[in-house]
Amino acid sequence: MPIPKLAQGFEKAGSIARQRYKMAEKITPRETDYSQWYIDIVLNAKLADYSPVKGSMVIRPRGYAIWERIRDEFDRRFKETGHSNAYFPLLIPMSFLQKEAEHVEGFAPELAVVTHGGGEELEEPYCIRPTSETIIWSMYKNWIQSWRDLPLLINQWANVLRWEKRTRLFLRTSEFLWQEGHTAHETEAEAVEETLKMLEVYRDVVERYLCIPVIPGVKSETEKFAGAVRTYTIEAMVQDKKALQAGTSHFLGQNFAKAFDVKYQTREGTLDYVWATSWGVSTRLVGAVIMTHSDDKGLVLPPAIAPEEVVIVPIYKNESKAAVMEYAGKIFSQLKDLGLRVVLDDDDSSSPGWKFAEWEMRGTPVRLEIGPRDMQNGKAVMVRRDNGEKTVIDAAQAGEKVKETLAFIQTSLYEKAKAFRMANTKPVANREELLAFFGAEGMGTADAQGGFAEALWCGSAECEAELKAQTKATLRCMPLDRQENISGTCALCGAPAKHRAIFARNY
Amino acid sequence: MPIPKLAQGFEKAGSIARQRYKMAEKITPRETDYSQWYIDIVLNAKLADYSPVKGSMVIRPRGYAIWERIRDEFDRRFKETGHSNAYFPLLIPMSFLQKEAEHVEGFAPELAVVTHGGGEELEEPYCIRPTSETIIWSMYKNWIQSWRDLPLLINQWANVLRWEKRTRLFLRTSEFLWQEGHTAHETEAEAVEETLKMLEVYRDVVERYLCIPVIPGVKSETEKFAGAVRTYTIEAMVQDKKALQAGTSHFLGQNFAKAFDVKYQTREGTLDYVWATSWGVSTRLVGAVIMTHSDDKGLVLPPAIAPEEVVIVPIYKNESKAAVMEYAGKIFSQLKDLGLRVVLDDDDSSSPGWKFAEWEMRGTPVRLEIGPRDMQNGKAVMVRRDNGEKTVIDAAQAGEKVKETLAFIQTSLYEKAKAFRMANTKPVANREELLAFFGAEGMGTADAQGGFAEALWCGSAECEAELKAQTKATLRCMPLDRQENISGTCALCGAPAKHRAIFARNY
Repeated sequence: MPIPKLAQGFEKAGSIARQRYKMAEKITPRETDYSQWYIDIVLNAKLADYSPVKGSMVIRPRGYAIWERIRDEFDRRFKETGHSNAYFPLLIPMSFLQKEAEHVEGFAPELAVVTHGGGEELEEPYCIRPTSETIIWSMYKNWIQSWRDLPLLINQWANVLRWEKRTRLFLRTSEFLWQEGHTAHETEAEAVEETLKMLEVYRDVVERYLCIPVIPGVKSETEKFAGAVRTYTIEAMVQDKKALQAGTSHFLGQNFAKAFDVKYQTREGTLDYVWATSWGVSTRLVGAVIMTHSDDKGLVLPPAIAPEEVVIVPIYKNESKAAVMEYAGKIFSQLKDLGLRVVLDDDDSSSPGWKFAEWEMRGTPVRLEIGPRDMQNGKAVMVRRDNGEKTVIDAAQAGEKVKETLAFIQTSLYEKAKAFRMANTKPVANREELLAFFGAEGMGTADAQGGFAEALWCGSAECEAELKAQTKATLRCMPLDRQENISGTCALCGAPAKHRAIFARNY
Repeated sequence: MPIPKLAQGFEKAGSIARQRYKMAEKITPRETDYSQWYIDIVLNAKLADYSPVKGSMVIRPRGYAIWERIRDEFDRRFKETGHSNAYFPLLIPMSFLQKEAEHVEGFAPELAVVTHGGGEELEEPYCIRPTSETIIWSMYKNWIQSWRDLPLLINQWANVLRWEKRTRLFLRTSEFLWQEGHTAHETEAEAVEETLKMLEVYRDVVERYLCIPVIPGVKSETEKFAGAVRTYTIEAMVQDKKALQAGTSHFLGQNFAKAFDVKYQTREGTLDYVWATSWGVSTRLVGAVIMTHSDDKGLVLPPAIAPEEVVIVPIYKNESKAAVMEYAGKIFSQLKDLGLRVVLDDDDSSSPGWKFAEWEMRGTPVRLEIGPRDMQNGKAVMVRRDNGEKTVIDAAQAGEKVKETLAFIQTSLYEKAKAFRMANTKPVANREELLAFFGAEGMGTADAQGGFAEALWCGSAECEAELKAQTKATLRCMPLDRQENISGTCALCGAPAKHRAIFARNY
């Protein structure tokens, strides 16, 4: 190539080209089998693969690149809000788990246990962390003496393991990657404020960066984190109308401080237990992105997290190749100079049509098609991945035009997902409507639209359990902004209502 | 504060101030007890802490911040050289380890074994990865069919676990964080080139970014990675003259391809096993940095990896406080605007002297002291952490001056460490000199200076073993640039020499 600046871009496209997808495997349409559609996308877009380890998956480079962008954005936001990263041991002495009664009850069935180390049987077995509250609070005991040591605002990026019987790539695997924030505070009010602040960080990143609209709310006692006083959640709806929990933030009260005896000297000179929070998001978010935006042609990615924002596909015959490539190279440079993540697919071994399908499978938000006629007219054809819209643009303004379009796509994906959720959320007044909504047995299917049912609820676990038994729907959350002026009766039992809640089937 | 721009900086200093170190614990001088000096620095500078899990440590926020900077620089370089990140399972079926004979022999004694999961005993136990060759090559078998799939250039950032009896914070712990590159190639030559390319990336980052001079070389058969054909290393010397292996890059030949039956269709249409490399650096590098540069006052950090490059300590009495703080605030802004990582220590509860000692302990490369007289003269006092040098600088040029000084420090730390290694490296001709150099029993102590002994070697493992038995010194490497014109006899057995090697005691 005559222009040295292009070398890296061309090289990159070359190596991608050598690893062409096999397009033989078609993607099952959503209508036919939603679960299979999801698996087809994950495997064909090479985001992840099954592994020989039961319940664990491999995150492949294209999946990991998406995770890296999600992770970096969260990390930036955590640091902006005063948190530091640290790293705690993978292994936790079994006895630590038992110090918080609800915590061990919740996690014991999911533990992987290390019984041998260095060729010997261990005196006390370790479990692999399912979450790190216990090991972290055993350290906080040494680090916190006085109010001067507070707040302690620590986050950890780590792998965790929870033995799962039924797994689904990204959404539920035994091992997964996540971050877990663990903070300690002087007062209850400050800890609650922190819990809500981090929930808001989650909401903001998930909505603006991943384009997934969510409902922030409180979990019921049944669904809360084992060891928490109160669990906050952000709940998303994916394309089969099921709910997907996208992140949780827990107010832990003084539960772990008491379990690990973490007291501090107050400003008044007395001793008191500290107040705690923990909060986490995981690689499950990659699954949420796929399920929310993709279509029957493959992955659809929000520009913010796409490994490549734009692909340029040159179209030429032998005689026009040199000229078209030079023209495409100039547009490539223009986009690169604007800081766009762009790739020029210059692979000679596949046809433009093949490339279009392939980059659609990969979810690249914008494609520029450039042929001899475009070149003669100083144009390029811009195609949006999200809606297939084609526009002829001036090559001279290609960079600005693509940038603008990427911003449109980012907004438009969010709006589309939000409209879908709104269309599939229904207020439900009583037991009959609720059962019908979820198509419970004997209720007919006419009203069984599924989705989010918004209903008044008395607060009892029995009502939750009964609905779950009949419909598999669970109480996803009590939306934070819908708890005022509660009057009326529980949709399930008819007792006076205390909350407004969202019920749905879920992942 | 009147200047809103400063708010974040002040806030940060405030939160640091609230977590003042206890200066009560003094650091043991290196002369008295080098091992204890090292531990004192790690604990007092709050880089890491002991954990309740045998052999595992906790990396505290200040230690993790250093690791983040090291990690990010390597990650940038790996991507620049065409590698992508991915993530493979933590657990490895025990049977996988056994597929490569040398590999299992090397790692079996160090394994942690998971025998129970989800409340049941497992049919086949898993080990926690001590390194990931086996699980990764079990996947490569599915991903590699043709030369078009090669080279496959993947890196993983992960935790690994090797059961260790004797541990040392950062330098040797059962669990540690690292990256492991795993690549597959068409030809032997290409794999060897990759092995050396990554060794060179390691050398460059460790020398230029961490200011640690290293000797790139080849390991002996005794010391090579279990499963490798050939292991390359970069070896550093720390302040007690012991060697520290700072990174390794392995040419694996076709060993793992054969163990996992990974064949590819060549360009000629035949089938052949692929060629492999693996390479890794770990959190041990944080220990290497501490041991190489620090002194009896505490940590000394290369500016490139220091969480803060500059600390500003204002000095005032009540009546001068407002004016000094405003003046200091302006200098803070000036530095910040230049992109420097700067903190203004505005904590009223400790004295300037206390702050000086504390930031020295933390290893912050440059300190600016600013008092009423400096303010009147438009000056500031700049103090270098590495050599204590004080300079009065013009406040108007503070930013440029500090930047220049940071660059000096970065170079000077490297030069100092290199001079130290040169002064403690000695050519040794024969057995007597070699034993005397390491102060072997019965050899007197006059010549027992220790350090790196450069000697000719016949290539036999017996000579290595004998020296180790008598002196604890091992063959660290055969330096890549010192293997020409070998003539003479092995310093140990007198047989014809084949290599020039560095012998040393090591961490």
